[in-house]
Amino acid sequence: MEKIEQKGIQSILFNEPPCILSGASVVGKKEGEGPLKDYFDEIIEDAMFGKDNWEEAESEFMKEACNLAITKSKVDLKQIRYLFGGDLLGQLIGTTFGISALKIPFFGLYGACSTIGEALSLGSITISSGAADYVLATTSSHFASAEKQFRYPLEYGNQRPLAATWTVTGSAAFVLSKDEGDILVKGITTGKIMDYGIKDSMNMGACMAPAAADLIYQNLKDFQIKPDYYDKIITGDLGKVGQEILFKLLKDNGVNIERNHMDCGIEIFDDTTQDTHAGGSGCGCSATTLAGLIMNRMSSRKWKRVLFIPTGALLSTVSFNEGQTVPGIAHGVILERR
Amino acid sequence: MEKIEQKGIQSILFNEPPCILSGASVVGKKEGEGPLKDYFDEIIEDAMFGKDNWEEAESEFMKEACNLAITKSKVDLKQIRYLFGGDLLGQLIGTTFGISALKIPFFGLYGACSTIGEALSLGSITISSGAADYVLATTSSHFASAEKQFRYPLEYGNQRPLAATWTVTGSAAFVLSKDEGDILVKGITTGKIMDYGIKDSMNMGACMAPAAADLIYQNLKDFQIKPDYYDKIITGDLGKVGQEILFKLLKDNGVNIERNHMDCGIEIFDDTTQDTHAGGSGCGCSATTLAGLIMNRMSSRKWKRVLFIPTGALLSTVSFNEGQTVPGIAHGVILERR
Repeated sequence: MEKIEQKGIQSILFNEPPCILSGASVVGKKEGEGPLKDYFDEIIEDAMFGKDNWEEAESEFMKEACNLAITKSKVDLKQIRYLFGGDLLGQLIGTTFGISALKIPFFGLYGACSTIGEALSLGSITISSGAADYVLATTSSHFASAEKQFRYPLEYGNQRPLAATWTVTGSAAFVLSKDEGDILVKGITTGKIMDYGIKDSMNMGACMAPAAADLIYQNLKDFQIKPDYYDKIITGDLGKVGQEILFKLLKDNGVNIERNHMDCGIEIFDDTTQDTHAGGSGCGCSATTLAGLIMNRMSSRKWKRVLFIPTGALLSTVSFNEGQTVPGIAHGVILERR
Repeated sequence: MEKIEQKGIQSILFNEPPCILSGASVVGKKEGEGPLKDYFDEIIEDAMFGKDNWEEAESEFMKEACNLAITKSKVDLKQIRYLFGGDLLGQLIGTTFGISALKIPFFGLYGACSTIGEALSLGSITISSGAADYVLATTSSHFASAEKQFRYPLEYGNQRPLAATWTVTGSAAFVLSKDEGDILVKGITTGKIMDYGIKDSMNMGACMAPAAADLIYQNLKDFQIKPDYYDKIITGDLGKVGQEILFKLLKDNGVNIERNHMDCGIEIFDDTTQDTHAGGSGCGCSATTLAGLIMNRMSSRKWKRVLFIPTGALLSTVSFNEGQTVPGIAHGVILERR
């Protein structure tokens, strides 16, 4: 039997599944006051993390998460053969300065807020191929560095529409292993760029929902399963607006996931007390929720099978200001409790 | 025998090597007037490629290169299971809008000018793993979109120091296959981020040379070979200044590659007539030289074994303006004529 089986047009099945050996999450103050606070490993009260600027602070969150994940895994740093990582900032500076001290051969990734899905997918393929016994997967985001890059100066105090999401300050890292660990990566479904022509950069949920819907539809089709095959189908950061669109798009295609859907963006903040509007977003949103809540629920066997789908809006201020759309992408990872 | 063998600390050997089935290069006017002009597939005289802005033009170069590589490969688009690609622009907009119409499951990569090395490496691992029979690897760069993002407005007409390189306008794409094609990917050596503390954004060669030197040193060590194992050791875009540093760093460690070294940045322009100073650079530099000159020399059996090492300077205006260094990275791909 082949180690990897191609399924349908966008999926693969790992017949000897790699595992998530350890996960670690390090988040900011606001995330540490939210509904998932008990599941994070570290809450850093200082948004600057003792650094001089937000970008360096973001790198520090990642550095901390990586070191923590490695410590928890009990794997010797030298055994980690590749690092798969990225963030939202231009040229991935959050990652570059966050991981360079680790001196691990590095593959830089960009999938906007879907990046941890990309990292887990490529990390799993790499382990399954035999090219590595251990790899590290990591992403980060920071509210302030993201606002600075994508929107307005914080000092300007712009009003945020209700469809807007709040970028999570935080980073998560995962050590993947060939055969140790309780949570298996059973398969992946890799997303295409989906462009429904949406041009509202303040409504990322709407930009990403078509990509998530397409991915879920394909996953079910490629593996010939129904939504209730999974205990949970968990999207990254669609928020409330995106979730509504997701349900509608899937229903139009005869698929109903309302019973077992969860969105990390909706879970991570409480809009009634935290003024976050549609939900959380950023590479750190789905990544820290995976390392926190999701791994907790799977370790305690509350959830056995999870389809984890980080979602990304391929927004750039340059293309946006030139009148381009904001396409979306999603990366699906099938997690299963051993 | 395992399909993939881990070699030393940073390398792998493919015992059933994937192949480059086809390569295509589409370049701008200046590249089409340079020493490598006869090797490119298409030369586009209009820097705007009929579009409204430089970023869309860059996407158009990539679209053309991808379509050409697919046509040359004679592979049905639907058989191409993954696309590995990226570019220099923030959030990879060159790639997003260049490839979205292809609707191929997409892994976005960022390795600055080393990106084609990353794409070929991950594409080869993916094929070798059994996850795909065919994948597409692509990158692009555009002189004007890069200057706009990283340096000064073109209208300002700033003077360029002699250590500066000229960003190549062009894109290349490659179809990798499981077993068809004359040029094998025998192995890869994956780079770490190397930071020698250099802060001169106008001297990218100096920023990248340590990464290239480290990668070459590790490749020779991991495979226990000497430089003359290769007919050519080809770096991406160190230029003349970077080449000098590369030779010095390797000599300090007892390795001499002067006899068989070539740098795509030095080859692609003629400084005496084209005023390009230290050489060419950008994701398109090494990628179009591979699709053009290098594949030509290998197909005609002039070169049997090549170590191809695209190099990247992890420069961002944000981190640079905040006083950070410009670290480098390199990705090594061992090519062998069947």
